[in-house]
Amino acid sequence: MSRPEGTPTADNFALKEYTLPQLTDGMVHVRNLFLSVDPYMRGRMNEAKSYIPPFAIDAPMEGGAIGTVIESNAPDFVPGDLVIHMAGWRDEAVLPAKALQKAPNISGVEPQAFLGILGMPGATAYFGLLDAAEAKGGDIVFVSAAAGAVGSSVVQIAKAKGMTVVGSAGGPDKCEFVRSLGADQAIDYKSGSLLVTLREAAPEGIDVYFDNVGGAHLDAAFARARLHARFALCGMIDGYNSREPAQFRYIIRMIAMRITMRGFLYGDYVSRLGEFYRDMGQWVSDGRVKSRDTVMDGLESTPEAFLGLFTGTNTGKMLVRV
Amino acid sequence: MSRPEGTPTADNFALKEYTLPQLTDGMVHVRNLFLSVDPYMRGRMNEAKSYIPPFAIDAPMEGGAIGTVIESNAPDFVPGDLVIHMAGWRDEAVLPAKALQKAPNISGVEPQAFLGILGMPGATAYFGLLDAAEAKGGDIVFVSAAAGAVGSSVVQIAKAKGMTVVGSAGGPDKCEFVRSLGADQAIDYKSGSLLVTLREAAPEGIDVYFDNVGGAHLDAAFARARLHARFALCGMIDGYNSREPAQFRYIIRMIAMRITMRGFLYGDYVSRLGEFYRDMGQWVSDGRVKSRDTVMDGLESTPEAFLGLFTGTNTGKMLVRV
Repeated sequence: MSRPEGTPTADNFALKEYTLPQLTDGMVHVRNLFLSVDPYMRGRMNEAKSYIPPFAIDAPMEGGAIGTVIESNAPDFVPGDLVIHMAGWRDEAVLPAKALQKAPNISGVEPQAFLGILGMPGATAYFGLLDAAEAKGGDIVFVSAAAGAVGSSVVQIAKAKGMTVVGSAGGPDKCEFVRSLGADQAIDYKSGSLLVTLREAAPEGIDVYFDNVGGAHLDAAFARARLHARFALCGMIDGYNSREPAQFRYIIRMIAMRITMRGFLYGDYVSRLGEFYRDMGQWVSDGRVKSRDTVMDGLESTPEAFLGLFTGTNTGKMLVRV
Repeated sequence: MSRPEGTPTADNFALKEYTLPQLTDGMVHVRNLFLSVDPYMRGRMNEAKSYIPPFAIDAPMEGGAIGTVIESNAPDFVPGDLVIHMAGWRDEAVLPAKALQKAPNISGVEPQAFLGILGMPGATAYFGLLDAAEAKGGDIVFVSAAAGAVGSSVVQIAKAKGMTVVGSAGGPDKCEFVRSLGADQAIDYKSGSLLVTLREAAPEGIDVYFDNVGGAHLDAAFARARLHARFALCGMIDGYNSREPAQFRYIIRMIAMRITMRGFLYGDYVSRLGEFYRDMGQWVSDGRVKSRDTVMDGLESTPEAFLGLFTGTNTGKMLVRV
């Protein structure tokens, strides 16, 4: 196992067998059902310190997972409990009880939803759109990577809240997927200039930009922003594997249009997850918002699933069933 | 007279004689004392629409000026009144009363202060720092163009409010000027990498960046921002005469550091000028904040004064005495 230079490859990963530790006092034995792969993990593969520490070489990749308790030596957990944790890419784990969170009881929801629309990507979309970008009914919202886990949640939340939504995605199939989520317009960033396609899709301009990619998308958003537009920056996947500087021709419009741009992280909002479960649980239960996943099978396919995030093989949330 | 391509030159301007109109009902005849030249005027020299309309060819350049009423056909003004207006580059003007604002009565203040520390640049600094950037006592503030009209006001306001201040300027003389304003550190952007000099000047990082220039300064601020830093964008003089895109290597830190960046304009705050006159008037009266000007003489020197803004011939506010 090794740190990648630029875009990671399968060679950076290895599948290893470990013996599970003893189920000592306070420990819980979990059998995973689904693993999450997320773009932010790319940052943790670098040596450099960021908002979370780098992954250790020769240790399992950490990350979101959901599983079932099969044995418990902790008072709060019993076999059969559905639990969410961050112990990542493995089929089974023995973990301290405090590392586990019981899945909220929301009717009609499959377990994997807690890694997607009702998990970190959904909450990132929810708080990013409604809090960081202060989006409200009537706003014209532009969201990039709209076919991805976070973006597809943003599209659906924005529609549930009465906004007009333009989503960008790569290729006609993904654009069709974005429209199927309820977006008013989907633009294909691989087809022509984003400046032109965004102007055509939102001739009056945009009030909100939810940024998952940075680069040319962000510049097009600067170019099309209306007065007092708000931008929420959630990720810049365009730059994760690159050392080239990002170029912006239109950033100067931040002044004339009094744009507010704000970086945020899911972690800023964990104390407010109750609001999220309440609203999103309701929307999922009444069918206004749907869980949308791309699922790959088998622990050994996890690196491929992860690498697919950077070439865009997923629509909706990318998951691995173990 | 003509529109500039890139950096303006003296050839874009002409000095012309006009016959003043009749002093009809509601009109006031003003003899100007000082004219203001400001970087934002460069934008109005382009054909393109921005937040204010372009200048008309063969009409006087509009802009801030202060003068004395010499004749009045309007009830609210009498000869001798000190008045501020936006009729710009001319020695005398006949203007409607509603285009004039009486200078506030603040003791010990020279007239030209109302074009600088107690005028648009001072108010831009005041509201940009305290409102747009939400700076507060204890913050570490970085300000670019710190020897300019707005920047020199930012330095002094920040010190009056108990902040630590790092100002950047071009060359050792201007850096000395910035230190004379009270800045804790002055860095010379013409001498070495801003990334390095800013790290040395603010080893703990920065909480606030007041941006007057964009470009490499803004990128260095991204690189050095601490958690929850706030950036106020007031101008990007680096880009006014250029068509090249701005390059940023560190904009991705907006996410990890949860930076908020906000564009603003003086015009957003005119309804709150009372707060500004109250605080700044007090600081000027008690000597904590000083008016700092570079004055050129004669109406004919106005284009040279204006062009000097882009080569940095001024320290503090650039003015023309007519």
